[in-house]
Amino acid sequence: MPKLDLAKAPVRTSCVYPGRLADHCKGRSKIALGDLGGLNQFGVNLTRLAPGAASAHQHWHLKEDELVYMLEGEAVLVEDDGETVLKSGDVATFKAGAENGHMLVNRSVGDAVFLEVGTRSPDEIASYTDPDVDMKVVKEDGVWTFYRKNGDKY
Amino acid sequence: MPKLDLAKAPVRTSCVYPGRLADHCKGRSKIALGDLGGLNQFGVNLTRLAPGAASAHQHWHLKEDELVYMLEGEAVLVEDDGETVLKSGDVATFKAGAENGHMLVNRSVGDAVFLEVGTRSPDEIASYTDPDVDMKVVKEDGVWTFYRKNGDKY
Repeated sequence: MPKLDLAKAPVRTSCVYPGRLADHCKGRSKIALGDLGGLNQFGVNLTRLAPGAASAHQHWHLKEDELVYMLEGEAVLVEDDGETVLKSGDVATFKAGAENGHMLVNRSVGDAVFLEVGTRSPDEIASYTDPDVDMKVVKEDGVWTFYRKNGDKY
Repeated sequence: MPKLDLAKAPVRTSCVYPGRLADHCKGRSKIALGDLGGLNQFGVNLTRLAPGAASAHQHWHLKEDELVYMLEGEAVLVEDDGETVLKSGDVATFKAGAENGHMLVNRSVGDAVFLEVGTRSPDEIASYTDPDVDMKVVKEDGVWTFYRKNGDKY
């Protein structure tokens, strides 16, 4: 049956960012719902942020559309041009190529839970807009590689 | 800001099926979240079924992956090979090309609310597996055309 068995689903708490950059996402956990169901055209993550955790470093995608649907608690959507609180039932969309770095941060005292939907493009570039985050990520044929902004590989 | 203003969002209660086939979805309403945010790689509908309403006629997609996330209430997932009740927090996935017709029906006394995520392929075929539903739908360059199973256009 296509109903997923979430009780047996793997919960990922690790972060793919290199070195200390991964510290930013401590307290974040994800269940990859789309992967679990064998989908490969888009991904849907059920993501939980403990108080203080962030979804990612502030970034924008060149090719992949994104959508966030808040399920429980609240999180702050931080963008290059401002901040917005997202509560249960709120939705935010991020069109591919829109050069406005974004991330969600949980500044509340309870967990924040949301769905993240994103296209699965075989090739992609994610650009990080926080000047203190020396990273750029390139996906080629589905494989992510992490670079410094000067072009050196991590 | 990328946060959507859902209070002003258009709510669609009409159904694209031809003639009496549209009666099946009476009591269904949708907000097209992805469209509202300008996304075009996947669609995300916030769909509400009043008691007795169905999401669609039982169908499967040739090219487009689908995922359903239940938000409120409960609905019965009806497939060619059985039925499953979906409650808040349940997830079901439908891989493109899996020849198992599916639909959600609300047999409860309250509303059922869920998110439907689906790829936006320019070309697609949806096949309807209920022998009483004489319909096949073809999308070419984003335009849907409805046929009878003998190939006649509606």
